[in-house]
Amino acid sequence: MYHVHAFATPNSVKVPIVLEELGIDYTLHAVNVRKGEQKSDAFLTLNANGKVPVLTTEDRDFVLTESAAILVYLAEKHGKLLSQEPVRRARTFEQLFVHASGLSPAFGQSGYFLKFAPQPLPHAIERFCSEANRQLKLLNAILAGQAFTAGDEYSIADIAHFGWIWRRAFPNLTLDETPHVQRWHDAMLARAAVTKAIGKLERLANTNG
Amino acid sequence: MYHVHAFATPNSVKVPIVLEELGIDYTLHAVNVRKGEQKSDAFLTLNANGKVPVLTTEDRDFVLTESAAILVYLAEKHGKLLSQEPVRRARTFEQLFVHASGLSPAFGQSGYFLKFAPQPLPHAIERFCSEANRQLKLLNAILAGQAFTAGDEYSIADIAHFGWIWRRAFPNLTLDETPHVQRWHDAMLARAAVTKAIGKLERLANTNG
Repeated sequence: MYHVHAFATPNSVKVPIVLEELGIDYTLHAVNVRKGEQKSDAFLTLNANGKVPVLTTEDRDFVLTESAAILVYLAEKHGKLLSQEPVRRARTFEQLFVHASGLSPAFGQSGYFLKFAPQPLPHAIERFCSEANRQLKLLNAILAGQAFTAGDEYSIADIAHFGWIWRRAFPNLTLDETPHVQRWHDAMLARAAVTKAIGKLERLANTNG
Repeated sequence: MYHVHAFATPNSVKVPIVLEELGIDYTLHAVNVRKGEQKSDAFLTLNANGKVPVLTTEDRDFVLTESAAILVYLAEKHGKLLSQEPVRRARTFEQLFVHASGLSPAFGQSGYFLKFAPQPLPHAIERFCSEANRQLKLLNAILAGQAFTAGDEYSIADIAHFGWIWRRAFPNLTLDETPHVQRWHDAMLARAAVTKAIGKLERLANTNG
């Protein structure tokens, strides 16, 4: 039985989604990031980097951090959601790293400077919001030509991108001008694994908020 | 023959390093990011995201972006620098994503707000510099207990982390207070593949600056 330390965050949601897709049993544990629990001493022993999600085995002899590394680990272990064919596989990793290094930091910093910074900093808001918009439009252009973010097959790249697209309200973004992302997003929400994972994570956050 | 479109940047350097380590022949092409050539129409046909590096085959029937995705692709194709053993492999991906989503954006934004922003924004400088310092110390703590960033074996995680550690002057960082990162950095510079790749990239930038 896996244990997933998480909250209703863009990175957390990826792990229950992949576990539901793979049909693997798991227990969720709330780490209330609104209260800063990810910086607590107990949590830092699991992840010195102070970030959710974390995946552990029952006896904690294996502890893995970084949501995208967890996606790769589980996909490879169970032989699903990550193609063995070199080009499809390269496209999947390309999008995993586009999300990790591009879209995700832009969405996160946009939301921070729009909503949490101690004073309004117009240049920082403009810098990160324009980059978040640019990343969303790049994703739209990719999805104009193919069903999923890494090609015509559903993969862990879709699960990775879904995290921040699901939480797009934090950087005040909508999908109104990116119809291909909207179509893909709706297709994601039509998957039982995705809605089941979101439901579990939202119940976890609501009962531990 | 591979072609690498690059400049003397933290992400670019990873690709010639891995190619030198694997003993693969390649041609470097300068994309002068100081002149904004990564946003030119010609370059955007190679990478719509407008970022170096890009790897292509001779006839461009295969074009791959995202430095870490290029590392994974080449390591898997040539069966080196990425362990097949599941736990070592998971540690390698964990560090690839720590670099892509944590250390790299923090170093990059620190340097930007310290040096390029149109006006000084103390809160943004503090936010990103403290995060860059925190990431450097986390890496130091990891390297206190093992020879390389993903364990006791040299891997593509080391090549990924080396990019920004090599370019640490941009965010005004030194290794003076992180002796384990310093030792690892020196071990990286003792590798012929690393110095050869740096030399080629610096000559490319100097003759195309």
